Amino acid sequence: MKTNDTGNSETQHILKWDALRGLCAELFVKQGVPEQDAFTVADSLVDADLRGLASHGVSRMTIYMKRLQAGVVKAVFNPKVEDESVSTLALNANNGMGIVAGIYAMEQTVRKAKDAGCCFTTVKRSNHFGTAGYFVREMTKKGMIGFASTNAPPNIAPTGSYRAYLGTNPIAIGAPATREHVILDMAPSIVAMGKVILAAKTGQRIPDGWVITHDGKPTTDAQLGIQGSVLPIGGPKGYGIALFVEILSGILSGAAVGPHIGNLFHQFARPQDVGHVFCAIDIQKFCPLEIFIRRMDEMISEIKSLPRISGISEIFMPGEIEARKKILYMKQGIPVPETVYNELAELAQSNGVAFSL
Amino acid sequence: MKTNDTGNSETQHILKWDALRGLCAELFVKQGVPEQDAFTVADSLVDADLRGLASHGVSRMTIYMKRLQAGVVKAVFNPKVEDESVSTLALNANNGMGIVAGIYAMEQTVRKAKDAGCCFTTVKRSNHFGTAGYFVREMTKKGMIGFASTNAPPNIAPTGSYRAYLGTNPIAIGAPATREHVILDMAPSIVAMGKVILAAKTGQRIPDGWVITHDGKPTTDAQLGIQGSVLPIGGPKGYGIALFVEILSGILSGAAVGPHIGNLFHQFARPQDVGHVFCAIDIQKFCPLEIFIRRMDEMISEIKSLPRISGISEIFMPGEIEARKKILYMKQGIPVPETVYNELAELAQSNGVAFSL
Repeated sequence: MKTNDTGNSETQHILKWDALRGLCAELFVKQGVPEQDAFTVADSLVDADLRGLASHGVSRMTIYMKRLQAGVVKAVFNPKVEDESVSTLALNANNGMGIVAGIYAMEQTVRKAKDAGCCFTTVKRSNHFGTAGYFVREMTKKGMIGFASTNAPPNIAPTGSYRAYLGTNPIAIGAPATREHVILDMAPSIVAMGKVILAAKTGQRIPDGWVITHDGKPTTDAQLGIQGSVLPIGGPKGYGIALFVEILSGILSGAAVGPHIGNLFHQFARPQDVGHVFCAIDIQKFCPLEIFIRRMDEMISEIKSLPRISGISEIFMPGEIEARKKILYMKQGIPVPETVYNELAELAQSNGVAFSL
Repeated sequence: MKTNDTGNSETQHILKWDALRGLCAELFVKQGVPEQDAFTVADSLVDADLRGLASHGVSRMTIYMKRLQAGVVKAVFNPKVEDESVSTLALNANNGMGIVAGIYAMEQTVRKAKDAGCCFTTVKRSNHFGTAGYFVREMTKKGMIGFASTNAPPNIAPTGSYRAYLGTNPIAIGAPATREHVILDMAPSIVAMGKVILAAKTGQRIPDGWVITHDGKPTTDAQLGIQGSVLPIGGPKGYGIALFVEILSGILSGAAVGPHIGNLFHQFARPQDVGHVFCAIDIQKFCPLEIFIRRMDEMISEIKSLPRISGISEIFMPGEIEARKKILYMKQGIPVPETVYNELAELAQSNGVAFSL
């Protein structure tokens, strides 16, 4: 038994990443998802687990499968171009899986940016798209500055209110470098609501400053926290960031906004109508890629050589800790908590898939 | 005597905004700045004062004038297009004034976005460009989602270090709405270094969590704070935002990076080589502007109607408090502290300009 990434102290199963990905893909295929799309979604989920982002990993399998089965998410992705100009694209995901829609939108964004210099793309009528960083990493591999963002059901209250209105709307931005691409993938909240939910489940208290109760009071009681809202970073600054993600992903795209987004876990009568945005900037339109990367490497080397606060062994670039964890977990296996392991076994059984993890 | 926006308790002079703008423009003209450019810079500075952002207002006149006089900033703006594609533009400001270069770059960005859908522009070899929100507001008036950012001399330490490497690199983003355009203009630091400098000047202590000392310790001593660095919002998240502003404004543009940027106040031997970025997205390429604005208005109305934390009288949108202050100060006059007032009088005298504020 060991503690996992989420601070949980459940028994851990150590699973091989490729076997795990294979199982997830097979399960999606059983729900009618085309093979390549099934692989894409499975790859994004397992990639999150490999990077230690368990909240966006295979722990999502049960709800993804449940929504496919209920028909509230479409297994076959059938995108529609709503509007297009030289360097913009407005897509309708027609209620397909968010990760499939995201990869499609990302690829179109890169294709157009290669021609036009940059491209800004919106997606409406979509669903939970996994980690934003997954798409951005693909863009940086193609010599782009990449940006991806999505709105999400409400968990953050605008400053001055205690009522959650905005999602913990993540932004991810990335740039290539030699050793490891630099990928920032962050929510504008101090903490992910997932961590509060987990603390409530395991009966742990949470630190001061993470959440406010549903009537606006600070609390360290996780149970009261999940009925309230998580606090944004920097007060009105984090509120402002979450708001502009909503303006781009919700309002500009034509998707649902804030509390009008369907709940992922409890609402099966109608689609979520989540919106995403993607932006790619072709670095070569500004300078040769080698020069950009050389300048990145120089900056990274300077930052990593800065004097450190006592007790700190290393200064990290955004995404670096996660990239190291991926190397480790690919070698040693991914620790998956008992609950999630059992959920996977159950999904395998009910879908007639062999379970040998 | 009243307390001004910066918490200072100096004597205040209440000045008419248009007379103040006229004086500043006249002073710049005396230093060889063409009349229209002089007006642009003066307008940006006075606009900041009108919005209560005194640190970016006419308190900058002395240093702007000093740098022009020393020839370390060029009075005549002579931009060069280094590279251009359908939706990107790489500019060289040739060491002109940052606000003049910014307005030029912003206008080109909007022009290209109207044709191509969106445009991303970099500027190198530039100087302090005032408030980022000033440019964004001009973009939203033209039916754009606007984005502006700049790097700046180091004041933030990467997480794990205590040595300032990144500037309090601001980001501004804006979107049009009926009543008041929504404009977020924020630094990724908990507080502006300007506030720490001011507290040090007036001998006040600063709240815990604002700064760390030059050897990595928390402090409430403003004097130790200005020798250290200001803390980023959300720890590694704010560090990540400041870093990506640097990657876009410094590395992609080809400008100086972090500690290689010249100091605004103490370095007169070489140009600062600040870099900026601008991005405009033409809303009409996604949906009719009226529909976008109607959706914005609906969201704003919902947010402003949310239940409030006890003691809170109103929920504000980003930029709203500043917009109200502008209306008030245009009517009642701008409170300018004695020190700044005296600096203006001195500049008028040494440049042979009548002083009648």
